[in-house]
Amino acid sequence: MEEDYSRWYLDIVKKADLMDYGPVKGTMIIKPYGYAIWENIQKDLDRRFKETGHENAYFPLLIPESYLQKEMNHVEGFAPEVAWVTQGGNEQLEERLVVRPTSETIICSMMSQWIQSYRDLPMKLNQWANVMRWEKSTKPFLRTSEFLWQEGHTAHATFEEAEEEALTMLDVYKSFVEEVLAMPVIKGRKTENEKFAGAVHTYSIEALMSDGKALQAGTSHHLGQNFSKVFEIQYSDKDNKLQYVHQTSWGVSTRLIGGLIMTHSDDRGLALPPKVAPIQVVIIPILRKDKEEVKNKAHQIKDQLSQLGIRVKVDDREEMTPGWKFNEYEMRGVPIRIELGPKDIEKEQFVLARRDTGEKEFLSLADLTKIIPAKLDEIQQNMFNKAEQFLKTHTFEANSIDEMKEQLLKEKGFIKSWWCGDITCLDKVKEETGATARNIPFDQREGQGKCICCGKESTTTVIFARAY
Amino acid sequence: MEEDYSRWYLDIVKKADLMDYGPVKGTMIIKPYGYAIWENIQKDLDRRFKETGHENAYFPLLIPESYLQKEMNHVEGFAPEVAWVTQGGNEQLEERLVVRPTSETIICSMMSQWIQSYRDLPMKLNQWANVMRWEKSTKPFLRTSEFLWQEGHTAHATFEEAEEEALTMLDVYKSFVEEVLAMPVIKGRKTENEKFAGAVHTYSIEALMSDGKALQAGTSHHLGQNFSKVFEIQYSDKDNKLQYVHQTSWGVSTRLIGGLIMTHSDDRGLALPPKVAPIQVVIIPILRKDKEEVKNKAHQIKDQLSQLGIRVKVDDREEMTPGWKFNEYEMRGVPIRIELGPKDIEKEQFVLARRDTGEKEFLSLADLTKIIPAKLDEIQQNMFNKAEQFLKTHTFEANSIDEMKEQLLKEKGFIKSWWCGDITCLDKVKEETGATARNIPFDQREGQGKCICCGKESTTTVIFARAY
Repeated sequence: MEEDYSRWYLDIVKKADLMDYGPVKGTMIIKPYGYAIWENIQKDLDRRFKETGHENAYFPLLIPESYLQKEMNHVEGFAPEVAWVTQGGNEQLEERLVVRPTSETIICSMMSQWIQSYRDLPMKLNQWANVMRWEKSTKPFLRTSEFLWQEGHTAHATFEEAEEEALTMLDVYKSFVEEVLAMPVIKGRKTENEKFAGAVHTYSIEALMSDGKALQAGTSHHLGQNFSKVFEIQYSDKDNKLQYVHQTSWGVSTRLIGGLIMTHSDDRGLALPPKVAPIQVVIIPILRKDKEEVKNKAHQIKDQLSQLGIRVKVDDREEMTPGWKFNEYEMRGVPIRIELGPKDIEKEQFVLARRDTGEKEFLSLADLTKIIPAKLDEIQQNMFNKAEQFLKTHTFEANSIDEMKEQLLKEKGFIKSWWCGDITCLDKVKEETGATARNIPFDQREGQGKCICCGKESTTTVIFARAY
Repeated sequence: MEEDYSRWYLDIVKKADLMDYGPVKGTMIIKPYGYAIWENIQKDLDRRFKETGHENAYFPLLIPESYLQKEMNHVEGFAPEVAWVTQGGNEQLEERLVVRPTSETIICSMMSQWIQSYRDLPMKLNQWANVMRWEKSTKPFLRTSEFLWQEGHTAHATFEEAEEEALTMLDVYKSFVEEVLAMPVIKGRKTENEKFAGAVHTYSIEALMSDGKALQAGTSHHLGQNFSKVFEIQYSDKDNKLQYVHQTSWGVSTRLIGGLIMTHSDDRGLALPPKVAPIQVVIIPILRKDKEEVKNKAHQIKDQLSQLGIRVKVDDREEMTPGWKFNEYEMRGVPIRIELGPKDIEKEQFVLARRDTGEKEFLSLADLTKIIPAKLDEIQQNMFNKAEQFLKTHTFEANSIDEMKEQLLKEKGFIKSWWCGDITCLDKVKEETGATARNIPFDQREGQGKCICCGKESTTTVIFARAY
């Protein structure tokens, strides 16, 4: 991890059996253990989307080229990185089709047919789908040519309602990522040069990885009327006047799994917060003598815990040693390991080993169903606290480009600085330090100070970082 | 429905707001109400797959052309109907990529890396995904160029284990389709000319639509070693000898939604079995006087039913009349409608209207939480019984092509006939009657009889039908 962070990351995704490389450059297979994490992410987020009044739908994968062309900034942003379908069966197509890199254009074209009156608003849709961006340089989960995500698309009567929606969904993302993935994030607005191609403005949550680099963990875009004007999405208001709708879109992707890995894992391998772990508790029977009795007891414990809704597995294979299994499930990031031997059963106890702290303790079997849920909560909280502590101790201030350079040489992290509002200053910071403006945090420093680049007196704080 | 079945079907999918047409020919948007049906299908099936020991994974959308070329029958079956990606970003690709029409080839290529020893077997994977087949003639849900499905892919040590798996999954499909979708089906083996491109043999479940045409509702393929030999998926057995694995694949798709519509619906619109209905109970308050009181009571009932896990909605909009709402939810196939007016509240009663029978009755509000779950079960069972009755009364026998023609002129349905085993006889039946062999049902007629085409003495029964 210290020696070669990138190598460490690639080792973990392979050794923990999360993924494998696909035959086409930049593609990956999400293997069952990795996909189970994604399923847990989906289930929790989907519930949050529905609770906030969104409905799921499914839109086509292929988008006519002419649709992509309609919104100027959008096509400039996406055209260089899309895959093109040019033949269907044995025919050459008259119009090339884009494999969706995101679905604003096709969804807007449908909304223009579906929305007639103010009664049709707000329209709040979400889609779980695969998307494709023809990336030059890729990395498992973090940047792959195809990835899985959800994309929310909404239409509203007013700017204010769309703004409220964009901010609500940013909050949904923040709560989810912090509560479930135990990743603390910084909410803020993207600078103009970093916003979504076609948006009025983009909000983001930014997380900090254990190497001090930032990861954009989710974005929520206020699209204003940019798309509604080119796709003619109009509604008649209560006075029967035609108005263009105001829109938002927002998404998170399998990238979150990459963030999860780089937030919590260590040299012993993956570490997963209980709420998202496919296996929350693994039971390893120590099979020296009284094998059947020990196995039975292990399965009995499993049933007790399963009944509480805990995801639990017994590994009672005899061809592997307990030591091999300890390493294996540590490497796979299972939060709690229960060890159980014949002596333990005699003493009505078990050994509980925590993945997050490495602590081991003897506990009473009689208290099992009270202890385990409490420990899982404790681990979840502890992992968040640790990550939050890391974020705090790795958020620095810099008053000049030189100070930033110095800091980045010493230790990487978030760097809070004053900024005058001029994009060319951001370009210069990036050029000289490799750090980009992550966002303008909602939590602003009070007062004012000198722009990190040009020195002009400024009132805006920006969070910079080198980023994934 | 009587006049123009096809028009009736297209009206229902649009009026019940299940779908809309996409911009690219043959594509569709699955709108929220239709997608909610798919989500209910997914949730139930996914549980059944996991209970039978399968794990979900995700494989790439794009498959190199050379992979598709490996299995000869497979490429012949699929090459004419695939979409081709030929450009990525601004580059022309060196090798064309197929948008997956099904994933055997890419999954086999990975299994050949993942499987080494008998300890790695069985490998039982499933994937929920979109697939694409460049169809000339399309129809919403039944045949679209892109559709959603699940595809199971498994590898086993022996022929017998693969055979058992293929049959187990056929049973899972049959139970699901009958118990949840209330569609009775006939299990059987596909004839050689109708099997999956690349399979040793294919099993299917065949349903009968209300116009007397058949719908293949699910298939399960025993692939034998056809793919494992060309993709070199080998394992070393207990004697350390290299063996090729035996494989299966199986799938159902959004086509099931088409089947659901054509099994249960009528001239009043869609009719949904409770287990798959997005809204199981709709409550319509009659808002003439004491509006607030009636609305409150409606929402109170809603909460009572929600707590039982029932999917319930109150429609208390004042701009629509109760009559308009009655029609609307009938057309959307909601199994139970509760009407509730000020007088009902006085008398502590409500009106329950059933979508399946059209019956209306006054019932006591005090018994609500007992009555509704029981009624939902009753409706589910009644819808299955009705469909089963239809299937029975529309299964005919024919001893010659002329008899079959005559029957199909009179009334369409399944036609059971003897068959000698010669594929050319099936071709001739198809040519003369338009009916194809749906499957060789497991439930065979005893004894023997003359082949429907050539008159040769035969011991095999085949189910024929015109089919979707």
